[in-house]
Parts: sequence; C-alpha cells; structure tokens
Amino acid sequence: MINDLILTDMKTIDVEGGSVLRVLRSNSNEFKGFGEAYFSTVKYKITRGWKCHKKMTLNIVVPMGSIRFVVYDGRNSSSTFWNFQEFILSRSNYNRLTIPPGVWVGFQGVGVEDNILLNIANIPHDDNEVDHVPLEEFDYNWNI
Amino acid sequence: MINDLILTDMKTIDVEGGSVLRVLRSNSNEFKGFGEAYFSTVKYKITRGWKCHKKMTLNIVVPMGSIRFVVYDGRNSSSTFWNFQEFILSRSNYNRLTIPPGVWVGFQGVGVEDNILLNIANIPHDDNEVDHVPLEEFDYNWNI
Repeated sequence: MINDLILTDMKTIDVEGGSVLRVLRSNSNEFKGFGEAYFSTVKYKITRGWKCHKKMTLNIVVPMGSIRFVVYDGRNSSSTFWNFQEFILSRSNYNRLTIPPGVWVGFQGVGVEDNILLNIANIPHDDNEVDHVPLEEFDYNWNI
Repeated sequence: MINDLILTDMKTIDVEGGSVLRVLRSNSNEFKGFGEAYFSTVKYKITRGWKCHKKMTLNIVVPMGSIRFVVYDGRNSSSTFWNFQEFILSRSNYNRLTIPPGVWVGFQGVGVEDNILLNIANIPHDDNEVDHVPLEEFDYNWNI
C-alpha cells in the first residue's frame, strides 16, 4: 500500500425501500477538515488525469456506477516513491479512498451507465495547489 | 418560503466525458460546520418520514434520480408555523436544500431508477436530537 493512502470499508445500512451509505464523520481519523464537497461524473472508458494536490487530502466514495482509480506516489521522501496502485470503487465495493497530498491520481469510468464520485476535500478548490500532467506522462496501461 | 429554509441553485461544470457538480464549500453562508456526510437511497414511490432535528442543519443535494422533499414548519415561534412546502431535487434541477433545525422533513423516490440524496450535516448523527413521527401524523397527500 502506498504510504498514507487509506482504504476504509464503509458501512451501508438497509432501510425501508433503500439504504444509507456512510461517507465521513468529523471524528474519523481520515477527517482532516472540511473545505469543499463536489461530485464528478465520468462516462464509460473516459479517463481523466493526472492531478496532484500539494495541500488537499481527498476523501472519495462512489455511490453510483464503478470507477477505477490509479494513484502514483510522487513524493521522493516516501518509501513507496514511484509506485502505482489501483482501486475500483463502486456501490457494491463500497469503500472510502483517502488520498494524501503529493500523490498523483487519475480515474476512469468502468460502469456503462452513470459513474459518480464524491470527494470531500479538507480545503476548498485552489488552482495554485494542484499540478496537472497529461495521461501519457506516466507509463500506465489504462485499457479496459 | 418557510423561514430559514434555503434553496440554492448549484453550479454544474461540463468537463471531458462528464461533469462536476458542486455541493458545498466552507465559505458558503449555508455551511454551519461539518459533522457527517451520508447518502440515502430511496426507491420509486417509497416515502420516508417524518423526522425533525433539534440541532442538525441539513444540506441536501440529489446527484442521481429525482426525490420529492416535503418540509413542515413545526416551530411555533416561526411566522411560517404549520406551513408545508414541497421541492423536487434531481440532477437536471440541481439545487441544494438547506433545512434548519425544528423543521420536519419527509421524502419520496420519484425516479423509477436509483434515487440518491447526499446530506452534509453540521453535527454527527445522534439519536437524541432527532424526533420521528409516522407519515400519517401530518395530513399531506403523498400520492404521485
């Protein structure tokens, strides 16, 4: 596992005619403050990346569809520097992925219908604290 | 409009192969702190209610499907005491509904597929700060 990356199996609770899916609580270890929450949707086989936040910790869940995340450790101080790791999040594999600053992330729509992620970030969006490079920059095979 | 109830038209941004849907920022007027985030799913024609929080402010969006919310002002200090108000939230009508403490809320699945709400609450779940009454308690016609 890439250092400081955390995958947490989240509780889902059946209720009448539906369910409740927990996302994050303020007393969780992975809660680093609240700056902003947003959804991203991504269509089947569409890949977006790479981005790397300098300050933001991301807490990501996928309540709908299925999304593949690939993270790449860009921190030269880290013992997992240069490592890739892959996760597929969905409602049926309902986990929360906590991504620390300094780690590159890309993602791809896996479900043929709607794929939606929610990110609860510890700081609001700020163009100055995020780096972007094209997908081709890191040698990873995204083919489904 | 029921007092202190706030409906905010939220920005959605088209990106390559998908979109970004804003939910809440820490500098929004409607942000009252972060206690917990969770999803609730509700099937077509299923109605859940009523509940009333004593302390919690709810910030609700619907990123998938369509959900009907009915709120009932139970605060006898409010000039809109005894009033009902109805909202339908969905991705195509992408608004955030802010519900203050002291207001009863019920909701119903309107979409025939998956209907999902996200609530970002200012305090974590606490059974002691929420009241429940059966749907029949308030005279409202939920028929679709």
